[in-house]
Amino acid sequence: MTTDVAAFVSPQRLLRLIDALARFGAREDGGVDRQALTPADIEAHSFLAGHARSLGCTITRDAAGNLFFHRAGAMAEDPVATGSHIDTQPAGGRLDGAYGVCAGLEVIAAFNDACLATRRPVAVVIWSNEEGCRFAPGSLGSKAFAEPASLAQLIAARDAAGISYSDCVAQLHAALPDVPAIPLRTRLGMFVEAHIEQGPVLEGRGVPIGIVTGIQGVRWFRVAAKGEAAHAGTTPLAYRRDALRAVAPLMETLYAAAERLSELRITIGKVDVLPASINTIPGDAVVTIDVRHVAPGPLDEIEAVIRAYCAERRFGCDLECERLMALDTTPFDAGLADTLRRSASSLGLASHDMISGAFHDSVNLARVCPTAMLFVPSRAGISHNPIEYTDPDLLVAGTRVLAHALAQLAGSATH
Amino acid sequence: MTTDVAAFVSPQRLLRLIDALARFGAREDGGVDRQALTPADIEAHSFLAGHARSLGCTITRDAAGNLFFHRAGAMAEDPVATGSHIDTQPAGGRLDGAYGVCAGLEVIAAFNDACLATRRPVAVVIWSNEEGCRFAPGSLGSKAFAEPASLAQLIAARDAAGISYSDCVAQLHAALPDVPAIPLRTRLGMFVEAHIEQGPVLEGRGVPIGIVTGIQGVRWFRVAAKGEAAHAGTTPLAYRRDALRAVAPLMETLYAAAERLSELRITIGKVDVLPASINTIPGDAVVTIDVRHVAPGPLDEIEAVIRAYCAERRFGCDLECERLMALDTTPFDAGLADTLRRSASSLGLASHDMISGAFHDSVNLARVCPTAMLFVPSRAGISHNPIEYTDPDLLVAGTRVLAHALAQLAGSATH
Repeated sequence: MTTDVAAFVSPQRLLRLIDALARFGAREDGGVDRQALTPADIEAHSFLAGHARSLGCTITRDAAGNLFFHRAGAMAEDPVATGSHIDTQPAGGRLDGAYGVCAGLEVIAAFNDACLATRRPVAVVIWSNEEGCRFAPGSLGSKAFAEPASLAQLIAARDAAGISYSDCVAQLHAALPDVPAIPLRTRLGMFVEAHIEQGPVLEGRGVPIGIVTGIQGVRWFRVAAKGEAAHAGTTPLAYRRDALRAVAPLMETLYAAAERLSELRITIGKVDVLPASINTIPGDAVVTIDVRHVAPGPLDEIEAVIRAYCAERRFGCDLECERLMALDTTPFDAGLADTLRRSASSLGLASHDMISGAFHDSVNLARVCPTAMLFVPSRAGISHNPIEYTDPDLLVAGTRVLAHALAQLAGSATH
Repeated sequence: MTTDVAAFVSPQRLLRLIDALARFGAREDGGVDRQALTPADIEAHSFLAGHARSLGCTITRDAAGNLFFHRAGAMAEDPVATGSHIDTQPAGGRLDGAYGVCAGLEVIAAFNDACLATRRPVAVVIWSNEEGCRFAPGSLGSKAFAEPASLAQLIAARDAAGISYSDCVAQLHAALPDVPAIPLRTRLGMFVEAHIEQGPVLEGRGVPIGIVTGIQGVRWFRVAAKGEAAHAGTTPLAYRRDALRAVAPLMETLYAAAERLSELRITIGKVDVLPASINTIPGDAVVTIDVRHVAPGPLDEIEAVIRAYCAERRFGCDLECERLMALDTTPFDAGLADTLRRSASSLGLASHDMISGAFHDSVNLARVCPTAMLFVPSRAGISHNPIEYTDPDLLVAGTRVLAHALAQLAGSATH
């Protein structure tokens, strides 16, 4: 019977919901600008709340701006939760986050159509402010949910215009007047998040479903070299203190490490050279380094390489290394991942075990309950872009796997 | 007697003239902003013209904005010319260019005080728009003088506000109403330019006088790598087309070449990476390369290295190399350099033979007459900066060498 429920996933209904949600904050180029807790985002929350009510859900909210749609279970057990976020980047696409919320609501619709009574309740959650582009940090809503002690500090965040996150949450709640509050960290039995991959791996392999076994750890560094600007023509080598020359070998060392260590991802995304004149030796050079790996060992190793490099004076320049951020590796629940894998298999869909390179709300959920994610492919790996796209058949396939797995996890009321 | 003339160089008068000139376009930080043909620059020309008249000079001008102060000789021979420029960078110093003009005028004053009658006339020239920061290219005035065919194109140059160089020259001429015009490329017997070194070599060696035997050749390149921007977390190495990664080995190769080949100077002064986000793989990277050497061979060699590197696809990126500029090596007149060297020696001043790393108006003059330069030290090698400084004793020493040499070169009227 739980295999059958996947057949009740309606492609038309799912895609219509994704289309309808994309109208909130629609950009003329086909993308979406629906930054967290803007009027467009609040209207989108109201729209989805209305849709969830039409599916028979009850609705609750918490103090961090998260919204919960509940489908009752036969027993008062902790719910099986799914969902994601609906806020976007300023020039975002229609699917990043939105897909997971729409897929969750379609699962509830499919359960309804299948007249499926589950033992556990099912909840679809909209986590607030995942993108972090309006209010820092990203994944604010799920972080506050998982760590209630951090709430006060997190909701004090202000956007570039000085508007506070907490004031915006009050506006969201005003737009949802009949929704009762629940405490942060209200118990969830487990959390399964569906999301677009935002990378090229599944498309490259021609596999429709990614089973996400964890989220790689990430560390950000800023390395600054301080030399002395001087005339490119008049300054012989022996007198140079070229700041770019001082960081160039580190760049090569890091690139070589990434080619040597499998799964290590190193990106030097920003290079700022001053005074930035074609005929002036750089007096300052600053690079940022983004290092990611599934295990902490290689992250420690690369950090040690960077720090050792910066500990010595190089080419007459002093170097400084600052660690801007460190997020540990998040391993997902192996049992949940196995359920997703078997659901895909029983629906005849190939799957590929992978780690997530990007952060997701599931990073925070994994601290409070068993958590896993499933991915569907992203065309050309492109996300955070109006041209973000996933084939509709693949959006449906992911939702079917989610429906099948959630039915398994929620259990049958009739057993 | 020509040795004695150096004794008539007046430190007070020289330094007072440098101070007076520095008031035109004076910056609050002690530097000078006297960009070419601005009101401050035109007023400075008028001031110097008045000073030259008070020294008994006749004055002429040409169509490129250059101004000539003439001290008569006994014979109608081609003049011995000296001088430099008085325009500055926006945040320039008091000496770059200005020193050579003031030293030339002080030489005339010293000749007057010494009652020195020379066989050849002596001319002090103010070349227009050497810096090139308001109107491109730099050394515009001396270039037009040396290559009259280039005049029309050169004076069509416009500044950032759209103001044409030729209109500004008309303003200069309006401010100098009684000054007759002479043709471009009016014959000069020889040209000797005094200038601050703008580099650290003389100070490092503790030598007061640099004998400049030539100006090194320079080539400018722009290397652009085109890859694809992608998420730093979600994009495995095999899928990356990291534009910065594609140019990094070239940077290392060039730095290594500069360390291997003596006298080769390589500067990577600008690095532009897009989209310049800490967690986005660069899709575009553009670097500029400034290569200098006294001989054309190493310049050809480095150009070949750059072109060969860019001819291949690297790390999934296409590379493009554009040569933005090439200036050949300019050898100076060995006889003139020898005269300068012997003048320094006869005044008891140590000298050091060197090449100029920077361009100067003398690059253009060397095409039309025997040309040489002498340098005085720059404190810490710093120029194009309000803190540009040369010890007054060294400014005087350079002017004495110039006076001695010009007296030799102009010859005695009584012989």
